[in-house]
Amino acid sequence: MSASQLARGSAHAQGAARPTATLRPCRGPAPFRSSVVRPIVASAAPAAQDAPAPKQQKQQKQQKQQQKQGGGGGGKAAEAAVTPRSEDFSKWYLDVVAKAELADYGPVRGTMVIRPYGYSIWESIQSYLDARFKELGVQNAYFPQLIPYSFITKEAEHVEGFAPELALVTKGGGKDLEEPLVVRPTSETIVNHMFSQWIQSYRDLPMRVNQWCNVHRWEMRTRPFVRTLEFLWQEGHTAHATPEEAEAEARRMIDVYTAFACDMAAMPVVPGRKSRIESFAGANCTYTIEAMMGDQKALQAGTSHNLGTNFARAFGTQYLDKESKRQPVHQSSWGVSTRFIGGIIMTHGDDKGLRLPPRLAPIQVVIIPIVKKEEDRPAVNEAAAALEAAAKAAGIRVKVDSDERQTPGWKYNHWEMRGVPVRVEVGPKDVASGTCVTARRDMGKEGKQMGVPMEAGAFAAHVQGLLDDIQRGLAEQAKAFRDENIVDVKTYDELKAAIAEGKWARGGWAASDEDEKRVKEETQATLRCFPFEQPAGPHTCLMTGKPAAEVAIFAKSY
Amino acid sequence: MSASQLARGSAHAQGAARPTATLRPCRGPAPFRSSVVRPIVASAAPAAQDAPAPKQQKQQKQQKQQQKQGGGGGGKAAEAAVTPRSEDFSKWYLDVVAKAELADYGPVRGTMVIRPYGYSIWESIQSYLDARFKELGVQNAYFPQLIPYSFITKEAEHVEGFAPELALVTKGGGKDLEEPLVVRPTSETIVNHMFSQWIQSYRDLPMRVNQWCNVHRWEMRTRPFVRTLEFLWQEGHTAHATPEEAEAEARRMIDVYTAFACDMAAMPVVPGRKSRIESFAGANCTYTIEAMMGDQKALQAGTSHNLGTNFARAFGTQYLDKESKRQPVHQSSWGVSTRFIGGIIMTHGDDKGLRLPPRLAPIQVVIIPIVKKEEDRPAVNEAAAALEAAAKAAGIRVKVDSDERQTPGWKYNHWEMRGVPVRVEVGPKDVASGTCVTARRDMGKEGKQMGVPMEAGAFAAHVQGLLDDIQRGLAEQAKAFRDENIVDVKTYDELKAAIAEGKWARGGWAASDEDEKRVKEETQATLRCFPFEQPAGPHTCLMTGKPAAEVAIFAKSY
Repeated sequence: MSASQLARGSAHAQGAARPTATLRPCRGPAPFRSSVVRPIVASAAPAAQDAPAPKQQKQQKQQKQQQKQGGGGGGKAAEAAVTPRSEDFSKWYLDVVAKAELADYGPVRGTMVIRPYGYSIWESIQSYLDARFKELGVQNAYFPQLIPYSFITKEAEHVEGFAPELALVTKGGGKDLEEPLVVRPTSETIVNHMFSQWIQSYRDLPMRVNQWCNVHRWEMRTRPFVRTLEFLWQEGHTAHATPEEAEAEARRMIDVYTAFACDMAAMPVVPGRKSRIESFAGANCTYTIEAMMGDQKALQAGTSHNLGTNFARAFGTQYLDKESKRQPVHQSSWGVSTRFIGGIIMTHGDDKGLRLPPRLAPIQVVIIPIVKKEEDRPAVNEAAAALEAAAKAAGIRVKVDSDERQTPGWKYNHWEMRGVPVRVEVGPKDVASGTCVTARRDMGKEGKQMGVPMEAGAFAAHVQGLLDDIQRGLAEQAKAFRDENIVDVKTYDELKAAIAEGKWARGGWAASDEDEKRVKEETQATLRCFPFEQPAGPHTCLMTGKPAAEVAIFAKSY
Repeated sequence: MSASQLARGSAHAQGAARPTATLRPCRGPAPFRSSVVRPIVASAAPAAQDAPAPKQQKQQKQQKQQQKQGGGGGGKAAEAAVTPRSEDFSKWYLDVVAKAELADYGPVRGTMVIRPYGYSIWESIQSYLDARFKELGVQNAYFPQLIPYSFITKEAEHVEGFAPELALVTKGGGKDLEEPLVVRPTSETIVNHMFSQWIQSYRDLPMRVNQWCNVHRWEMRTRPFVRTLEFLWQEGHTAHATPEEAEAEARRMIDVYTAFACDMAAMPVVPGRKSRIESFAGANCTYTIEAMMGDQKALQAGTSHNLGTNFARAFGTQYLDKESKRQPVHQSSWGVSTRFIGGIIMTHGDDKGLRLPPRLAPIQVVIIPIVKKEEDRPAVNEAAAALEAAAKAAGIRVKVDSDERQTPGWKYNHWEMRGVPVRVEVGPKDVASGTCVTARRDMGKEGKQMGVPMEAGAFAAHVQGLLDDIQRGLAEQAKAFRDENIVDVKTYDELKAAIAEGKWARGGWAASDEDEKRVKEETQATLRCFPFEQPAGPHTCLMTGKPAAEVAIFAKSY
């Protein structure tokens, strides 16, 4: 599937044009949320079609066929087929998603098929976060996806935020339903419906549950991983006896996300607090991790919310305290979604495709046997298998690509496109000398190393060293890029200049919601967060010139 | 929540009365499928209500409160509160689901909340199967949940089977959709839509994907785990170059399910082939594992389908063979769902609650410190922690319940209800003698053993031995029960007599579809399967008296 097809998708269920461009509160534990959505991808074509038209389909098949058959030539064509990142970042992104076979468009406008390689990245994310949540006493559960419409209306801000983008089930088993059912956009309402039955006394608190599931939000402008009608995520929901505990939980979870982004994904995110108008619909306070993409746009990559007693009061989620008085619980919710995969692509990718941080890479090392004469094959394959075993024994995720139908050159491109951090080459001469060659995905020719010993322990140690270096290198590179592109501003004019250059603008902020909206209207930049890490003060509000307690970051965003 | 409330649930979205009771093909890779659905649970009350009425809710809270506060007395009340299995199997089941906190009703009729303890059983199931699938070369992926209605109609039998129980999204983002979208009941159609784009040549085959997801089927008679409007499952979908490979794959996967059921869940299932009219809507052939529940009813606990080229032809899923000729792919699909948890409960549970097979138990061993004098607490807790560490080091899933607010007796009941296979008791005298006490969940007092050494290696070996014995014991008990309750029949009268006694009837079968329907109408028993393991022939058809190539099993079922 070509990038332009990816960008267009097929237009099955036509949605409405985006109703209004007015600012409204951010409505999700959603990493997906940001109230300004710039049309990065052309909107869905108006013609409805079930599947690619026959001609298109045929072209695709031919293209794929050619690519495969031509693969023998060395795959340079495949490499050139990715739009350079510097030329058109948006097209580059769609090319990488398509060519690394991470995702494909579903038949319904705005939906996405997560292909096996893309899904394996999600499994890496799940594996880390799920273990971390469990260490913190969170238990997984599953709440029904279909929610009575009346639930959504119980919390006033929540319904205002979510109503415009709900998918509704109105028919079931061949009959019209009496009340439409909401296809879960997030689960605070149904979780509180259950919590109100499960929580009786202070002894039941804290209660911490999480679910891994799909959610739907009827978005108009979609983009694979970054913003889709349906996405996968985890949503954690907790209830506590005191406001302090709920606040601590919301902060703890944004810390978990920060550590995950920095340590595992090599994404040097900026954690901070959202402004009131950018907070989740129904939250007292929203925390976020903001990541800088390769085009300097901000991506909200995870959020946690202190919900206060807003949902508890709407749903009667109360507990008996030690004095036997009824009290509403204090709550938090928090989520990370498949959007994070988009963040990884746009943080680390280059003109050769994806670059995966080793700790999250489903395949950390690919071993490529190089065989020119058939008689060499058994010895080379045997050596490759021994290297594979050595890496596996050291806990390294490794794959041997011994497909005889493709050339080594084609395979190099193939696995570079997929971002595998380390490549190992082994041919007959290597076998003879008891060594092999390693190549780093994050470097060009200078990352190639000959004469790496094949002895199991030494080989594994060498490869583990490379993986550690690459992990650190990607993080440093991303951090340097981020820091270069954050500009301290003292006035609104400086902010406008910084944003016009594509930078993030950081400056004192103590102005009104109206002023914040004005910045958005005039610059398309939004207040991303008040970072937890504040530069030394005092600060002056860039808009009003009055003293400001904090600096905020403004940026254009996904 | 009391059992009667569980049985009734709250009636939110009213569905229609079951349209007709006519026999129609079984419609899913669904373990949930069986075309005879007997009203085991009273149908939903007609009154719509969002939540338990205030009075009900208050009663619930009081009950729960009493249970908690009264817990200090030893929990005998809690034990007595489960309806004896022999008295009312159906009520017993609902009691266990409620009291072991496995699931709860969702607000929408027929939906279920999977509570953390129930979900942890699902995680055990996932963990085993997911690893097994990966060993077999299956890759996980994710396909959109919303499917264009037109897709469902492309395969004639498929639409006939599924149309009556679809949930439809007709509104999105505040607008009516041009075409309703089906909330996935199963994914053969959308998978083929994508496969037709991904598969070009024989080199792309076999293609094997699986997804873990939720599906919806608008069922009228629901029951937690066993049959719910929404359930969780895995659905595998494969495409092959030849009919032989697709057949081998369908057989391989039913073998995986059989091994899982027998080895992990201690459920001695009968694997076999479904009759034509009981097969999946769109399959050439359906394989099933049939389990006998504690009330002798059959439960279809997993299925795999040889889909032939039915979906491939409907969706144009073709490949170029080595002679460059276009050929349709040959396919299989296969699934196991949260229904399996219902199967475990109804296979192994007893009057004290759940009994979990050790290999699937989220907690295999619970350690209960017994402290009467406060001064003993530190030494006893220290001993408990040492035992926990010893078990953990041996790879045993262990929990110490050191909650000071509950008595040991209350805890015994609590963990027996939850089916934890082994209990370890440790008190001051044990500490003094360097020993502890173990108790088996599958036995009464005779399963209690004093003087078990506390030394780490010896303790872990002893406990592991108990777990192995319990695993084997549960499987043997279930197998003996099953074998006692299968009756060989030679005539239709014998079949009727066996079914009337609640048994499974096994006999030669070579009669018509009409005859099969007649059996169902007259006895409520369905043809569960032609077992792979056939008794030595020759066989005579119990209905027609003619020679029969195979015996079939008939039984009443869930």
